[in-house]
Amino acid sequence: MKLITGGVCAAKGFKANGVHCGIRKNHTKKDLALIVSDVPATAAAVYTTNLVKGAPLLVTKKNISNGIAQAVICNSGNANTCNADGIEIAEKMCALVENATGIAASDVVVASTGVIGQPLDVTPIAEHMAVLTEGLSYEGSLNAAQAIMTTDTISKEIAVEFTIGGKVCRMGGIAKGSGMIHPNMATMLVFITTDCAISSEMLQKALSSDIQATFNMLSIDGDTSTNDMVTVLANGMAGNGQIACDGEDFATFMKALNTLTVNLCRTIAGDGEGATKLLECSVSGADTLEAAKIAAKSVICSSLLKAAMFGADANWGRVLCAIGYSGADVDVTKVDVSFRSAKGEIAVCKDGAGIPFSEEIAKEVLLEKEIEIVISVGDGPYSACAWGCDLTYDYVKINGDYRT
Amino acid sequence: MKLITGGVCAAKGFKANGVHCGIRKNHTKKDLALIVSDVPATAAAVYTTNLVKGAPLLVTKKNISNGIAQAVICNSGNANTCNADGIEIAEKMCALVENATGIAASDVVVASTGVIGQPLDVTPIAEHMAVLTEGLSYEGSLNAAQAIMTTDTISKEIAVEFTIGGKVCRMGGIAKGSGMIHPNMATMLVFITTDCAISSEMLQKALSSDIQATFNMLSIDGDTSTNDMVTVLANGMAGNGQIACDGEDFATFMKALNTLTVNLCRTIAGDGEGATKLLECSVSGADTLEAAKIAAKSVICSSLLKAAMFGADANWGRVLCAIGYSGADVDVTKVDVSFRSAKGEIAVCKDGAGIPFSEEIAKEVLLEKEIEIVISVGDGPYSACAWGCDLTYDYVKINGDYRT
Repeated sequence: MKLITGGVCAAKGFKANGVHCGIRKNHTKKDLALIVSDVPATAAAVYTTNLVKGAPLLVTKKNISNGIAQAVICNSGNANTCNADGIEIAEKMCALVENATGIAASDVVVASTGVIGQPLDVTPIAEHMAVLTEGLSYEGSLNAAQAIMTTDTISKEIAVEFTIGGKVCRMGGIAKGSGMIHPNMATMLVFITTDCAISSEMLQKALSSDIQATFNMLSIDGDTSTNDMVTVLANGMAGNGQIACDGEDFATFMKALNTLTVNLCRTIAGDGEGATKLLECSVSGADTLEAAKIAAKSVICSSLLKAAMFGADANWGRVLCAIGYSGADVDVTKVDVSFRSAKGEIAVCKDGAGIPFSEEIAKEVLLEKEIEIVISVGDGPYSACAWGCDLTYDYVKINGDYRT
Repeated sequence: MKLITGGVCAAKGFKANGVHCGIRKNHTKKDLALIVSDVPATAAAVYTTNLVKGAPLLVTKKNISNGIAQAVICNSGNANTCNADGIEIAEKMCALVENATGIAASDVVVASTGVIGQPLDVTPIAEHMAVLTEGLSYEGSLNAAQAIMTTDTISKEIAVEFTIGGKVCRMGGIAKGSGMIHPNMATMLVFITTDCAISSEMLQKALSSDIQATFNMLSIDGDTSTNDMVTVLANGMAGNGQIACDGEDFATFMKALNTLTVNLCRTIAGDGEGATKLLECSVSGADTLEAAKIAAKSVICSSLLKAAMFGADANWGRVLCAIGYSGADVDVTKVDVSFRSAKGEIAVCKDGAGIPFSEEIAKEVLLEKEIEIVISVGDGPYSACAWGCDLTYDYVKINGDYRT
């Protein structure tokens, strides 16, 4: 398992491109991305659990219900959500892909990210399909990654190489995290491609399983978006025998997927709206996986702890407090807490009570850009990890600004 | 039912005082409060649901297990929570009250608010018991209200007058909201007194019922404190026949209590850490009370909506989003939303989709200090209300500062 370059085009047979079509007003910002596979691919997806679902999600769900897709189109600048004509517009986007590439509209994954409740005009998209398609390239991942960004400050690409049945396979992905030029939802989109041959059932199983410990353990601000979506397309061009059941090959595939998704989670968390720090909270020693996950996620979601981390303040009482109200079944008199970073690790709480520690060293540890909050809740066998970021003035600024 | 002055001393037979004893470093800030009843009172309390509970809560719970109390002692500046000797210190505080007033230590409600996990030295409290007790007065409510403040910017007192069985009764209370000089938990404390005669069972029933629609519908930042506590002492000195069962008198009592608690909720919310605006979210038309409450609370807790309100931005998509992920059983295609303030009301969403509105008027409405988010989710008979505040730079500043 090694990290490689190439992003969403690292796997064989995937081209991508991204252009500025005019949905976003800033002409230097790309706002329309297209990813296509040379051949039809098995497809899997997971979607937001928000009852309010963006129209593109509903169309995507229908299109990949047969387990097959060949292209992804995604715009930024407008979420196409809570609009009366949302479904119609999302279907038009798929039809535009069919017209431009010959790929059936029903094999297109469609996604939108941006402000909710403002009609999405399909005209600028239609007018730029030719240039978008002509520019498709096996080296186009960065263009696509840039075109799905909103207030993300960095584009997010990752790829890995692994071997299945003696065949070299590749898997890559792009993601957008939190933030909008017209700030709205912490809309998260992830598009993953692989040339590994895998049945759509096993692909869905891999994705549905993986996100429980990755994207579902990520929080920027506690607000679950209406447009979250993670999709994987697997086109089989690596030439391996198709993975169609559990076993060693599936385990390798899962490991590759997890390497990719953990990396994207960390990148998204560290680039959360206004964030100055990546926070990783690991909880070990729990009696159940559920308890470990609930506790880790509660800590990472605490506004008070997030603000303390912004201030590099070793305010461990807030960690205890967040575990205490999390609903996790833990014995709070057995909780140990330490803070860890590149500067070292400092223990601050033992058996649920404070222990003497150097505030100076704690501050040095917490002034780093990546902070790990290390929690042990007992002697149980289960552990979990969650990712988030600090709460900063810029979060308020980004989200308090007028939309107009 | 009329509002009167006098706060926690408005009811007959209640004296109070507050002094600076030295737990807080700033000499101009009072940090020790005492409330005593001339005669033993029936008592009721509700406590935080956080598994991590402050030592004072445990001692209070034990002391009022017989339904009787006669005094309340409360310090600010230190929560006496997650300390190995916490229980011992809390019991010492009760013993100090007994020494100074003759009221049995087991009839004392004890509370602390402030930083977690730092040992509380009882010495400054012991040294100031004489001056605290000597200064007890039937006009002392403000002193006590000030002594339980932390970063609250205003003291919080309220009282009402009502009639039970031809007898004039009074009920009053003081509260502290969110914030610490060493910022920590949004610790909420409320002490209510009344001269109405009511059995401890009915008093507990009234309080436990009332908080479901008042303090449990309040959120500053989503972090449930370890030290939250609401207590009521009823000393019977109004001379009414004791309320010992349901009926008209109990209904009147409940109404008085609710008038008090809603007022305190609004005051606490409007004075939340860093807040510039009070937010009130009302949800009507739900099929169940639970759905109305869950939806209202989800909206009031959304960081994205709170930041938008700070920016006076009519970003109604965030309201829909928060309803959608709340878990409330509602049909999102039937949701109507409007914003209301002293400047008027503006509808922004009908049947789950946006409607045209004047951004200029919306801005004018939202620039007010008290904003109501008015939501209808259908034709059902249930409604609920939740209170909160906006998310501001100052929230981050207060909670990002170093403790030391």
